[in-house]
Amino acid sequence: MTRPEPLALPDLDDILAAHQRIAGSIVRTPVLHHPELDELVGSEVHLKCESMQRGGSFKLRGATNAVLSLSDDEAAAGVAAHSSGNHATALALAAAARGIPAFLVMPVDAPAAKRDAVRAAGGKVIDCAPTLAARAEALAQVLADTGAHEVHPYDDPRVIAGAGTAAVELLADVPDLDLVIAPVSGGGLLSGTAIATAALAPGRQVWGAEPAGADDAHRSLLAGRRLAGTRPDTIADGLRAELSDRTFAAIRAHVSGIVTVTDDEIVDAMRILFTVAKLVVEASGATGLAGLRALPQRLPPKAGVIVSGGNLDLGRLPFVQ
Amino acid sequence: MTRPEPLALPDLDDILAAHQRIAGSIVRTPVLHHPELDELVGSEVHLKCESMQRGGSFKLRGATNAVLSLSDDEAAAGVAAHSSGNHATALALAAAARGIPAFLVMPVDAPAAKRDAVRAAGGKVIDCAPTLAARAEALAQVLADTGAHEVHPYDDPRVIAGAGTAAVELLADVPDLDLVIAPVSGGGLLSGTAIATAALAPGRQVWGAEPAGADDAHRSLLAGRRLAGTRPDTIADGLRAELSDRTFAAIRAHVSGIVTVTDDEIVDAMRILFTVAKLVVEASGATGLAGLRALPQRLPPKAGVIVSGGNLDLGRLPFVQ
Repeated sequence: MTRPEPLALPDLDDILAAHQRIAGSIVRTPVLHHPELDELVGSEVHLKCESMQRGGSFKLRGATNAVLSLSDDEAAAGVAAHSSGNHATALALAAAARGIPAFLVMPVDAPAAKRDAVRAAGGKVIDCAPTLAARAEALAQVLADTGAHEVHPYDDPRVIAGAGTAAVELLADVPDLDLVIAPVSGGGLLSGTAIATAALAPGRQVWGAEPAGADDAHRSLLAGRRLAGTRPDTIADGLRAELSDRTFAAIRAHVSGIVTVTDDEIVDAMRILFTVAKLVVEASGATGLAGLRALPQRLPPKAGVIVSGGNLDLGRLPFVQ
Repeated sequence: MTRPEPLALPDLDDILAAHQRIAGSIVRTPVLHHPELDELVGSEVHLKCESMQRGGSFKLRGATNAVLSLSDDEAAAGVAAHSSGNHATALALAAAARGIPAFLVMPVDAPAAKRDAVRAAGGKVIDCAPTLAARAEALAQVLADTGAHEVHPYDDPRVIAGAGTAAVELLADVPDLDLVIAPVSGGGLLSGTAIATAALAPGRQVWGAEPAGADDAHRSLLAGRRLAGTRPDTIADGLRAELSDRTFAAIRAHVSGIVTVTDDEIVDAMRILFTVAKLVVEASGATGLAGLRALPQRLPPKAGVIVSGGNLDLGRLPFVQ
């Protein structure tokens, strides 16, 4: 299979087809609701807990959809990607489920918990320097050496379609949400969420929540054109990538706005999720709640928050002294 | 109201009446299920997450039932108890909801997170030495000084009835469980669980899980008579109390067995709940899962585990180095 067309995006049918394709391989994660959290936030908050997905993040949805969409020939030499962590684990799990190898290029500063998870899932880890250029170079070498099929973490309609299935489940479980918010990094989750929500629940707001220290989506949406990211500086290790033309197009078409949050706001949302909701979430996973609390408008009565992942080094929780 | 009769126990009607009485004051906590957890344990495990109860433990159920059962006269001077933590928070919350004061005698070695929670709930904390004798003495003084009504953490049919409502919800959500397991300390939760399960789902096994370092229930059940506890030595700070004649009678009548677990097994169950199920649980809350994994018999196909609480100092997780 050649690389997908640069701007091809999934539609609702693609997302629903992805949902059917992956249903046997993923967890239908719970949507949790906690009165004490509502009181604290000032809105009824429904948490779609992709932290409880197999592999600990929503990434399994897109990776599995991509791997199961490959022909036997395409799949034979395995799959490969570069990723700071959760996509790597997800791709390793999806490949193992199909019985093919997975090669994962990971920056040396990825959290130990994520590196260990990739190896435990049977993935082959290739180290690289923590820059996008070094990651791309290392991946090109792996693809040349192995003949593996690349599954990009977000710039791929199959991956975006898979990511959108979380919103399908959230809206099925809580149909009357006024607003859905998801973290944004490369934009795969937010694109899938926005496409699914626009089609299934037209008129509802969809917001992205982005770290202030990695705010290319926010700036791009304001500028009306995709702006390159600057050197990311945020505690949310899963939110350091930047939009592609594809995800920018989806976000521009369907998203109400991007709210930026400081690392302090992210850490505070983590503290609330751990201590009130009693959920283990990584910084990226808490960013949606941080964004909801920082919305530049009156809070909606009923909000859905996609808690994107729960993989982190528990010995260094940033909200405890 | 005088102290309840020494051996009075609630029946299913009392538990169902308690459920109606407290329904507006408690969270109907989720029952979570995680395929990766099942694979690890070797059984389908359904977690009744009382860690997500208001106040972070099942204790709110019994405390609320007791407080709402008081006449206005009985309630006027407030309520009081001694507790290592979760009952204290729960009683403070239940009292605040009724607009009456709560006086809580707490040992000085109670976790800071629990002491803070009691104060945040509006409870008045009275410090005492960490022995049962010191706790009883301090409480007697408080009762004499204030005229408050004592709500014992477990030796009270109203508290046991409230505790049993968690099992009512668990069995409603997953009716075909083969076995239910709950931690045992003073025995209120296990008594209520066992009475409810015996009546609603006769023939199902009900087990208690008890720290090896605080195993009076295990020894008492084997001996056929209630044996005094020895000095408790366990990481599970919520499981250091001992049975009363009342809870021993309920347990003897309805419980299949008590399985003891080492602190290492409890810590390992905590690690699994944090890293696989992505749940924040305290050591006591993980003891049910530890007990399930240590059962002295073939694991049942489908087990319900009561995760009793989730309050702990997150800066000192015992399973991280």
